[in-house]
Amino acid sequence: MSPESWDRADPAGAIASAADRCSNVGRWGADDVLGTLNYIDDEARRRAAQLVRTGQVVSLSQPFDSAGPQNGWRGRTNPVRTMLTSGLDHEHAEQGFFHGLGGADDVVFMPLQAATQWDGLGHIFDHGMAWNGRRAGEVVTSEGDLVTGIETAADRLVGRGVLLDVGRALAGDGELEDGYAISPDDLDQTLARQDVSVGTGDFVLVRTGQLARAQRGVADGSGWGTYAGGPAPGLSFATIDWLHDHQVAAVATDTWGVEVRPNEFDEAFQPFHQVVIPHLGLFLGELWDLDTLARECAADDRYEFMLCATPIPFTGAVGSPVHPVAIR
Amino acid sequence: MSPESWDRADPAGAIASAADRCSNVGRWGADDVLGTLNYIDDEARRRAAQLVRTGQVVSLSQPFDSAGPQNGWRGRTNPVRTMLTSGLDHEHAEQGFFHGLGGADDVVFMPLQAATQWDGLGHIFDHGMAWNGRRAGEVVTSEGDLVTGIETAADRLVGRGVLLDVGRALAGDGELEDGYAISPDDLDQTLARQDVSVGTGDFVLVRTGQLARAQRGVADGSGWGTYAGGPAPGLSFATIDWLHDHQVAAVATDTWGVEVRPNEFDEAFQPFHQVVIPHLGLFLGELWDLDTLARECAADDRYEFMLCATPIPFTGAVGSPVHPVAIR
Amino acid sequence: MSPESWDRADPAGAIASAADRCSNVGRWGADDVLGTLNYIDDEARRRAAQLVRTGQVVSLSQPFDSAGPQNGWRGRTNPVRTMLTSGLDHEHAEQGFFHGLGGADDVVFMPLQAATQWDGLGHIFDHGMAWNGRRAGEVVTSEGDLVTGIETAADRLVGRGVLLDVGRALAGDGELEDGYAISPDDLDQTLARQDVSVGTGDFVLVRTGQLARAQRGVADGSGWGTYAGGPAPGLSFATIDWLHDHQVAAVATDTWGVEVRPNEFDEAFQPFHQVVIPHLGLFLGELWDLDTLARECAADDRYEFMLCATPIPFTGAVGSPVHPVAIR
Amino acid sequence: MSPESWDRADPAGAIASAADRCSNVGRWGADDVLGTLNYIDDEARRRAAQLVRTGQVVSLSQPFDSAGPQNGWRGRTNPVRTMLTSGLDHEHAEQGFFHGLGGADDVVFMPLQAATQWDGLGHIFDHGMAWNGRRAGEVVTSEGDLVTGIETAADRLVGRGVLLDVGRALAGDGELEDGYAISPDDLDQTLARQDVSVGTGDFVLVRTGQLARAQRGVADGSGWGTYAGGPAPGLSFATIDWLHDHQVAAVATDTWGVEVRPNEFDEAFQPFHQVVIPHLGLFLGELWDLDTLARECAADDRYEFMLCATPIPFTGAVGSPVHPVAIR
Repeated sequence: MSPESWDRADPAGAIASAADRCSNVGRWGADDVLGTLNYIDDEARRRAAQLVRTGQVVSLSQPFDSAGPQNGWRGRTNPVRTMLTSGLDHEHAEQGFFHGLGGADDVVFMPLQAATQWDGLGHIFDHGMAWNGRRAGEVVTSEGDLVTGIETAADRLVGRGVLLDVGRALAGDGELEDGYAISPDDLDQTLARQDVSVGTGDFVLVRTGQLARAQRGVADGSGWGTYAGGPAPGLSFATIDWLHDHQVAAVATDTWGVEVRPNEFDEAFQPFHQVVIPHLGLFLGELWDLDTLARECAADDRYEFMLCATPIPFTGAVGSPVHPVAIR
Repeated sequence: MSPESWDRADPAGAIASAADRCSNVGRWGADDVLGTLNYIDDEARRRAAQLVRTGQVVSLSQPFDSAGPQNGWRGRTNPVRTMLTSGLDHEHAEQGFFHGLGGADDVVFMPLQAATQWDGLGHIFDHGMAWNGRRAGEVVTSEGDLVTGIETAADRLVGRGVLLDVGRALAGDGELEDGYAISPDDLDQTLARQDVSVGTGDFVLVRTGQLARAQRGVADGSGWGTYAGGPAPGLSFATIDWLHDHQVAAVATDTWGVEVRPNEFDEAFQPFHQVVIPHLGLFLGELWDLDTLARECAADDRYEFMLCATPIPFTGAVGSPVHPVAIR
Repeated sequence: MSPESWDRADPAGAIASAADRCSNVGRWGADDVLGTLNYIDDEARRRAAQLVRTGQVVSLSQPFDSAGPQNGWRGRTNPVRTMLTSGLDHEHAEQGFFHGLGGADDVVFMPLQAATQWDGLGHIFDHGMAWNGRRAGEVVTSEGDLVTGIETAADRLVGRGVLLDVGRALAGDGELEDGYAISPDDLDQTLARQDVSVGTGDFVLVRTGQLARAQRGVADGSGWGTYAGGPAPGLSFATIDWLHDHQVAAVATDTWGVEVRPNEFDEAFQPFHQVVIPHLGLFLGELWDLDTLARECAADDRYEFMLCATPIPFTGAVGSPVHPVAIR
Repeated sequence: MSPESWDRADPAGAIASAADRCSNVGRWGADDVLGTLNYIDDEARRRAAQLVRTGQVVSLSQPFDSAGPQNGWRGRTNPVRTMLTSGLDHEHAEQGFFHGLGGADDVVFMPLQAATQWDGLGHIFDHGMAWNGRRAGEVVTSEGDLVTGIETAADRLVGRGVLLDVGRALAGDGELEDGYAISPDDLDQTLARQDVSVGTGDFVLVRTGQLARAQRGVADGSGWGTYAGGPAPGLSFATIDWLHDHQVAAVATDTWGVEVRPNEFDEAFQPFHQVVIPHLGLFLGELWDLDTLARECAADDRYEFMLCATPIPFTGAVGSPVHPVAIR
């Protein structure tokens, strides 16, 4: 399927067609809660550990703080972390302890998808249906995701990671423009250029370069701009088949929403999500920082590594913060 | 140093003495923010990856939800996670999207140390001083830990883990009684029984069995009891020298506070913390779940593994949630 | 209707019967969002202002803090208020301001019904129906109460208040026992004893004395006990007709749930609520502190006053904190 | 003192001079926590109640929701209110209740000064000092304001209110421009035009018209602009003496910060606050909505009323949300 093959005026039709072609519904049984994480097994993880050559650990997390990109859109603010008590309090007074002990403690309020995070399988629905053919309202109520809550998959997010630095492969400055739709060909070219392959159960990390651009904006005082929720480079709707055919376990990017924005339809919002989460059971990672990893991979020309990306297991969460690391 | 060697009426004296014997202040330079994590290097992590034999991943996290053990003491509640929108909303109405797309999204409020977590080096002070000889009030203000915030160490918490199932080694039912002080001898006996050693840069996971007991209380309706903040089995004050001599990178337990409660002094609160955080720069993990790991280790008699335990890098946090996993 | 007149084994039947007898559904039109607040008009408020004799203001609010009665049951914790910055920070450093300016600022996380509060009309449903015959799911989604959100009524909660100190009228020590069901006769006797009447559009404040008892528990270290969510004195199910006949605008008590607990049925939960909110459109105030007011009223034998009790107008809230005051 | 009388390059000097001229420190004793609220007594409140002619209640509160003006600056987000359970959940399932009962419940996270609010006396410091000559760090720690927390004054905020519609008095369209500094003369002219006076213990509500302008921006899609934290019309630094001489109890405006922004000095931030809170003990109300009140006052040419503005008594808060109402 090429980007030209759908009707820009008919996102619903394109969604239905892609869902039909690429559906994993029922593939792992009616009770499945893991989706594409089923592609990974212990043996895959054992081999992933063997990719560790130097022991270098690279953080793939953005900072979690109030200086982040969120602007309140759709209820998403940046994390607000405050102290229950601090070092100043300890120096000032006893804090109610004995023998010179002092302490500091903090609390946080945050949308679970405010910063580096995994989407859970209960995050997106298609016409009333959640992953694996379940009714959306049977799965996610006010209590959270009663079936596919992130805790059901959280310890599976370990395996072989492959960086696809599409930004560097395609753009002179390493940064794709907002609105650039990464095609299946782009992915293949990047793999070829990097001399690495992607296969069953892999975690595919796609660097677009948008984060680097946004961070320069923050540094020079012009701010995050539309980094959270606005135009972005990202995966084309046409990559759904590619991801399905390669049997990847998950995809993560350095953007807020993985897929290209504006979307490749006249009036649309996240059609790629609408296919890959409810129909493929694909895990998506968003707001990752892949810039340091990209530099390290380029330096020694190795783009595969062990990935450990186990999100906080909030019971029933439809998305959850994670501090992913590449171990090389 | 034996448990008998201090004056129960003089915790301040014992603290000062232990701090004097075991201090790492200045050891890694005046600017150090990593403390005992300096004991780990890439080579140690490379060897840790080689411990992976089967690829099995074992979660060491407790659930993060409102059914947890916290009771509001010192401002610590359980996490409160709520939905911004849910599957019921999608089934009920458009949610403002196009082409049949639906979504669910959630937010959370939580004390950072409400569930499975690492203490950061800014969490505890001794007579006005934080880790490495800094003034507590210079380090942790209302803005958080300006020097040793958890983000400075978050990607270092990967390495060789060793489980010490002291509960199983010493108690018939695998559960130490509340108030039981684990001695250096207990640690040595456990290591001998398990035929494993602990050395420089290792993560030492000490299972007391208290969590299993508390969870039975929850299951039978009697509740968490004093699991969060009350009496507990834990490390004796006498283990400080042992941990220092073995040059461990971190210690984590299945209890709320690592050390035994009540403490081994007439009037005291967390004297072990007061030594090991500000003076040794030791990282402590609390509220971990080591029960599954204990079963798996016993099953194949292997008590060492690769540990990946990178906490969420909240900028300036003095403690942070983590989903640690043992990879075997 | 007397307490004896219903079948203890059939709460649903008693609820249906009371709803049938006392329904206000449709009384103020299909679009009504005010329920019994329709009983108050400007003239009633003008007369209420004339009740002010001395200008004394009596607070009817409990403290809003982490020492409150909530225990996490059904997600209700006490408010957690923390500082963004404090006086210690100002003394310690510049805080980024000019010319010696310093500041302090705080944030709060709280369930809206954690402390002194009004129930909104979207708080309780009966068999799928909200106030005035609307479907519950049409009224309250994850976005909140789209029809009868507290903001629609918030500025109406001003009028004539009457204290009924039932605790003092019936109990030697001024405190009704937990489980005591206040009957219509009890209300009438209290009015007679206090030589005051209740009529159309009045705010009826019923003091049971439970708060005084609970606060003694806090003071003596035994804690709040079951003050939040447990057994309590309160209005009998039989008072529904009395409240309806008297056309009161609202009822508030010094307990967590207005009605007696355990309820007057074999297996039941808040049947009074199930009638008065969806069928009468009655506003209920909970967790008020009526003890000071009771002393002041007794001192000069005046039990009527101007009440100002305008809750914070959180858009779409189904309940909201309020600082009610009696002006005498 | 006229606007011309200070050195624009020396805010610290002007602040010190104004503080010296207008200080109330010590005026009401060393233990005072009420500041200018001491100007009100019961008799003043009794007379305020007599101002009620029709019983009309006018809300002076802005909505409390996520569509508000806050943008995260200095940690201030808009309130985030979410449901613990909703009407959709009730329609969908039992919610764990009996006999057809259903319920909805909500929680909120908010900075206490995110919307309509009173500044407490612990909110602002001058060179290390809080109200009444106390050290800032003795008053406000991480636990909050230990001395002048809003709960100490919350039930005093009832009395005679006077609207000064300066926007209407001075501007053709009723809206002062951002940056317009309201002078003492402007206040006097407005009073004269409105034929009303201000005296001891009054609440002075100053309408600038900025809120009306900002709300038009929201309505036409251009957003709040800089309404929260940016340029604004407001009281000149020169009005400090006027407010002091008139012995007002409090001042509230329809802007985020009462005083004009940018301030009337070359480099400055809220110098008026720095004088009136720590030195006068003056209560300031911010983000009030005075537009409806202005219309009603103009309609019957009465600019005085009973004001009831009792904030939520969060223990130790340095500011607190309030739903103020004018009763006319």
